[in-house]
Amino acid sequence: MAYKIAVDVYGGDKAPDTVISGALNSIQESDADIVFVGKEKEIVEKLKMYEFDKKRVSIVNAEETVSMFEKPSLALRKKDSSMSVGIKLVKNKNANAFVTAGNSGAAMAISMFDFGRIKGVTRPAIATLLPTLNGSVLLLDAGANVDCKPYNLLEFAIMGAIYVKYMVGIKKPKIGLLSNGSEPGKGNKLVIESYDLFSRSSLNFIGNIEGDDIYTGKADVVVCDGFVGNVVLKTSESLPEVIANFLKSEIKKSLWYKIGFLLAKPAFRLLARKVDYAEFGGAPLLGVNGNCVIGHGRSNAKAIKNAILKAVKFSQLNINDKIEKAVANCIVLQKCKKAVEF
Amino acid sequence: MAYKIAVDVYGGDKAPDTVISGALNSIQESDADIVFVGKEKEIVEKLKMYEFDKKRVSIVNAEETVSMFEKPSLALRKKDSSMSVGIKLVKNKNANAFVTAGNSGAAMAISMFDFGRIKGVTRPAIATLLPTLNGSVLLLDAGANVDCKPYNLLEFAIMGAIYVKYMVGIKKPKIGLLSNGSEPGKGNKLVIESYDLFSRSSLNFIGNIEGDDIYTGKADVVVCDGFVGNVVLKTSESLPEVIANFLKSEIKKSLWYKIGFLLAKPAFRLLARKVDYAEFGGAPLLGVNGNCVIGHGRSNAKAIKNAILKAVKFSQLNINDKIEKAVANCIVLQKCKKAVEF
Repeated sequence: MAYKIAVDVYGGDKAPDTVISGALNSIQESDADIVFVGKEKEIVEKLKMYEFDKKRVSIVNAEETVSMFEKPSLALRKKDSSMSVGIKLVKNKNANAFVTAGNSGAAMAISMFDFGRIKGVTRPAIATLLPTLNGSVLLLDAGANVDCKPYNLLEFAIMGAIYVKYMVGIKKPKIGLLSNGSEPGKGNKLVIESYDLFSRSSLNFIGNIEGDDIYTGKADVVVCDGFVGNVVLKTSESLPEVIANFLKSEIKKSLWYKIGFLLAKPAFRLLARKVDYAEFGGAPLLGVNGNCVIGHGRSNAKAIKNAILKAVKFSQLNINDKIEKAVANCIVLQKCKKAVEF
Repeated sequence: MAYKIAVDVYGGDKAPDTVISGALNSIQESDADIVFVGKEKEIVEKLKMYEFDKKRVSIVNAEETVSMFEKPSLALRKKDSSMSVGIKLVKNKNANAFVTAGNSGAAMAISMFDFGRIKGVTRPAIATLLPTLNGSVLLLDAGANVDCKPYNLLEFAIMGAIYVKYMVGIKKPKIGLLSNGSEPGKGNKLVIESYDLFSRSSLNFIGNIEGDDIYTGKADVVVCDGFVGNVVLKTSESLPEVIANFLKSEIKKSLWYKIGFLLAKPAFRLLARKVDYAEFGGAPLLGVNGNCVIGHGRSNAKAIKNAILKAVKFSQLNINDKIEKAVANCIVLQKCKKAVEF
C-alpha cells in the first residue's frame, strides 16, 4: 500500500499556497500520497488552480488553525486545528507521517500528547540538519528541551546517530558534544557529566567540539541542550544576512565594486541556495512515537516538498523502531537512568 | 603623571614582534607610556629595529612565558612569567593597566588571584565588543563563568552597562538577556529567574533577545552565561570564513563570476576589516580589581595598539570605581545576594 503523508495546509508563513504547491510537487518525486489537512472548502478552491493526479490526493477537514505565536498549551486545546487533526491521522494509522511548517513548539506539544514518546526515550528533541564544508551535520536538541540532564543528552546522541546513519547514510556517525573548549573537562556541569557518559557508551564519540567546528564537518552529530541549540541556530541563521548587509554598504562605495558584484551575483545566489534550509527541508522530531517533520516557518514550496520527501523516507525506514532498539541496547544509558530513579 | 601600560610581550600567536610594533604605535596616539614585560635581552634586541621616544618606553624582565594552551592552574604557579610579572606591576601601582593577547583563561586566573575582585562583584566576566549593523554590542560573559546564578548575570549586566556607558558613550545602554525566545517566560531556569531580577532593577532592560538579534543592534549589552557566550562567539567567528569558502567554490564555476569577484574584492576586504576583532581591540576583564585588557590570540600590531588605547581609556575613566558604585547601588542585587546567603 502506498505511504500517506498528512500535510498541515495552514502551517508556515506562506501557507496555504506554498504548502499546497510544494505538496503537489512531492507526488511527482515519490509514490507517497498526500492528505491535505485544513479548511476543506478553501483547499478545494485552491486545488482548482493545479493539475495533479486526483487519486493521490485527499482532504481531511479541520476548521481551526494554530498561529506561529500561539502558546503550545493553548494550541493543545484546539482539537480541530489542522495540526491536531493531522497528528491524529497519523496516530490512528490513517497516515504514515505528519508534515507542518507551523509553530514548532505547538507541533512538539501536540505530538508529545498524541503520539507519546518512543519507549525508553525520556525527552524527544528537535533535530536540524545543517550544511558543512563537506556535507551536513545534525544538531540536536534545537529547542525542545531547555534544561537537561546528562542522560537526556545521551538519548539525543543515540537518536541523532540513528537518524544520520539511516537518513544521511553515514555508517558510524561521529558524535560531538558542543562545549566551550575541546579538551575533556571543559564545559559546564551538564557537559562535563555528559562527556563521561558519552565516553562509556558505544557511540563513535569524538569528544567536545567548539562552536567554530560546527560548520567544518568535524562531527556528523552535534549534541547540546535545547537552549544552547536554539541560540546557536538563530545566531547562525542571522549571520549570512548580517554579513550581506555589511557587504552591501561597502559595495556602494565604488562603481567598480558594483559592477563586480553584479557579475558575481549568480554565485551569491548559488551560495544562498546551498545554505538554505529549503534544500535540507525540515527538522524531524526525534523521540516521539509517530512520524512528524517540522519545516521552517519561512518554508517555500521547495522546502515543503523536501520536508515531505524526508517524512516519506523516515516512515519507510522505520526510524522510530530503530531508535527504540538503540536506546534499549545502550547499557550506559539504562544504568544511568536506574541510578537516577533510586 | 603619565599613564603607564604594562604590555605582555609574549602574549599571542604573533608575539613578540607584533606586540612590540603595536605597542610602539600606540605611544603616537596616546600619552601613555609603555612598559614591556618579558625577556629583557630579547626585547632590547628587537627594539633596536625601531625608532621611538626612549623616555616613554621601559622594560621589566620576566623569564618565563605562558603558552596559549597552558592550563590556568599551571600558569598561576609561574611567578616569573610575563603575565604574572605584568599583572603584579599593576597590582603594585607601577603601571595603570595590563594588556595581553595571550591565554585568556590564564590572564583571568592570574588577575583574579592578584587583583582580587571589585568589592561587591561575585564573578568577574570577559566582555567582548562585537560589530552590529549600526554600531556595536557588548556580549558578556564570553567564557569565564560556565555555570551561573541569576545574580551573576545581573552583575554582568551592571558591569556591561557601565562599560558601554563610559567606553562607548551610550547614555542609557539597552540591556538584553540572551534567550531561546523573546517573550517573558522563555528561557532555561537561569534565564527565567534572571529575567525577573533584571526587570526589577533600574537597568534599561529591554527583555529577552534571541540569537538572531545579537548582530542587529537591538541591544547595546547582551548578557548570558560564559558557556553560551563562548559557543555563540566561536560559532559567529567561524561563519564568515565558512560562508567565504562556500562562496569560493561557487565562484570557481564561471569566468564571469571570477572577474566580478576580482572587481568587488576590495569591498570584501573592507568588510573583513569591519568585522575584524583588530578594529575593536581587546576584551576587558570586568569585575577584577585592576585594569586588564585581553586581546585576541590572533592579534596583529593594530589589534595590540587598539587594546592598549582601550586600556588607557579604561584606566583614565576609572571604570572599576564606577562598577563598584553601581553594584553597591543596585538594591535588587543586594537583596538577592542576601537571600542566597541565608
